[in-house]
Amino acid sequence: MSFRTIEWRDDKVIMIDQTRLPGEEVYCEYADYKGVAEAIRGMIIRGAPAIGVAAAMGVALGAREIVADTHESFFRQLDNVCDVLARTRPTAVNLFWAIERMKRLAEANRHRTLDEIRAALKAEAIRVEEEDLALCKAIGRHGAALIPAGATVLTHCNAGGLATAGYGTALGVIRAAHEAGKKIQVFADETRPWLQGARLTAWELMKDGIPVTLISDNMAGFFMNKGEITCCVVGADRIAANGDTANKIGTYSVAVLAKENDIPFYVAAPTSTLDLSLASGAEIPIEERHGREVTHLQGFPVAPEGIRVRNPAFDVTPARYIAGIITEKGVVRGNYVEGLRALVGP
Amino acid sequence: MSFRTIEWRDDKVIMIDQTRLPGEEVYCEYADYKGVAEAIRGMIIRGAPAIGVAAAMGVALGAREIVADTHESFFRQLDNVCDVLARTRPTAVNLFWAIERMKRLAEANRHRTLDEIRAALKAEAIRVEEEDLALCKAIGRHGAALIPAGATVLTHCNAGGLATAGYGTALGVIRAAHEAGKKIQVFADETRPWLQGARLTAWELMKDGIPVTLISDNMAGFFMNKGEITCCVVGADRIAANGDTANKIGTYSVAVLAKENDIPFYVAAPTSTLDLSLASGAEIPIEERHGREVTHLQGFPVAPEGIRVRNPAFDVTPARYIAGIITEKGVVRGNYVEGLRALVGP
Repeated sequence: MSFRTIEWRDDKVIMIDQTRLPGEEVYCEYADYKGVAEAIRGMIIRGAPAIGVAAAMGVALGAREIVADTHESFFRQLDNVCDVLARTRPTAVNLFWAIERMKRLAEANRHRTLDEIRAALKAEAIRVEEEDLALCKAIGRHGAALIPAGATVLTHCNAGGLATAGYGTALGVIRAAHEAGKKIQVFADETRPWLQGARLTAWELMKDGIPVTLISDNMAGFFMNKGEITCCVVGADRIAANGDTANKIGTYSVAVLAKENDIPFYVAAPTSTLDLSLASGAEIPIEERHGREVTHLQGFPVAPEGIRVRNPAFDVTPARYIAGIITEKGVVRGNYVEGLRALVGP
Repeated sequence: MSFRTIEWRDDKVIMIDQTRLPGEEVYCEYADYKGVAEAIRGMIIRGAPAIGVAAAMGVALGAREIVADTHESFFRQLDNVCDVLARTRPTAVNLFWAIERMKRLAEANRHRTLDEIRAALKAEAIRVEEEDLALCKAIGRHGAALIPAGATVLTHCNAGGLATAGYGTALGVIRAAHEAGKKIQVFADETRPWLQGARLTAWELMKDGIPVTLISDNMAGFFMNKGEITCCVVGADRIAANGDTANKIGTYSVAVLAKENDIPFYVAAPTSTLDLSLASGAEIPIEERHGREVTHLQGFPVAPEGIRVRNPAFDVTPARYIAGIITEKGVVRGNYVEGLRALVGP
């Protein structure tokens, strides 16, 4: 990969600013956890797995900032750091998963000195990042087997290197198929309102030399109906126990259109995206963001002043539309309740 | 209506510039048919019925411009005027319908002086405009009966007063339901890439005090699935003999999503939009426009330089997704082949 989405360097967290791509490749540095929380909320960094990595690094930064005389004080303040980070975005479960993992790690090291705990948290955050990259490669390996040679793959939003520690989930599948010499090409939905497809997916696939064609979201059905799309692969922000999948707004529409046109629709995500505590997608909280994302483009108004707007950032695709969920441990198909439970063990 | 989409005044054609709405309400004047052709191509005016009116006025302007000593020379030059206007946009059949109507009128007046023919063409163009307004009111009357009180109506693109001589087709149905006191509200798809929904539908409904909520195209499925949409009403650019309907890109997706969620999906259009010479929608030519409409917003790039783009401006919705076609002569449902043929007579 020709860019780094997020890294820990010199006790700072460095992120590529995804609000400024593709026009400018700018890297932001954060030395404090509040900066990281703001970066997540403001979508400097986005994508469920990348948000998980950022949250883990945010906890590690926060631990360094805490001034405490006692372990009790340290852990109380650490809880507060975790709460601030957890309140940034409600839908991606990887955020909560990463924070919980960091809390458990701290707890397991409670008998050690505060500096030892801080060091352990930093090491764990870097491990979350390294693991995520390895998971993406495994997802890519499993998923590439599902992509026929010469396929045209439609993807929505950006489930790419920019949405993860690198390589990507949906784009990991695409990268692996490309690297396997399958001569595939990609159709990227631009993904309104935030244009992750136009700005990020198009950018990173062009950087890697993978043929990509940009369309607006409402064209996906046209090309499916024309027979120009072989399959769809998207990422996920949270997957319920029955396979219902929350992902970027518009994913549900892609899935319905794929089903109507007999095109397989796949979800690619690490098992950290599973939330088996939720029986179905109906329980997944859906973030609504500010209407200005819809009414303004690059700060310029494209709608009448004062217009009422709805702006749900995610939707839920019922499991019946999903041909397979591609994880680092393999592909689950058919009975998702059993298949997903088997993945994570007893 | 608080604005005029197009009118003939002092032997000029005046149009509201739809590329500059909603930010600026600017009116353009055209004294020559080539200006009108450019206005159609450049989408100063758009919407199938409005394009028909503009083409008719363009022919009348062109007839005024012709310098000819003989009827033969006049009619040869008039053919050329018609050809230039016909080459502006390929999908909306109203364009060809209006031009044919003007040609027939000229032919029927061949025995008269050139100035009499010119005057007859001018009168006919104004009649096309006046008739279109009356047709829209009739469409509204027939369609409003299909809209339940308290309904939330989803519409795509702009099939409004701005797409017609006034009042609108799909928005004519909505206006008539509103005027009947049905307390409806509208969800408007923003309609990428040209944002007719955000810029035009939102603007004209707000001007008329009809409650409207703006969403991006990929949110329509979300709200349908949530049970927040009662029915969908859209316009049409060309309707084949079997009811297959070409309309703004994204219409097909709305129709598929509506069917999947058991929501009635209606098409509203004057019978001049029918093209019974085409057996099915597969024969309707689909205009592909410049990729810059997708990659740039208000002149500002939102995608990487050099990205490949597809930009079909229309799609075809198969008749099986359409719960009814609302025309000025009544609503056709069920067997479209028979119903549409019956509308236009033997």
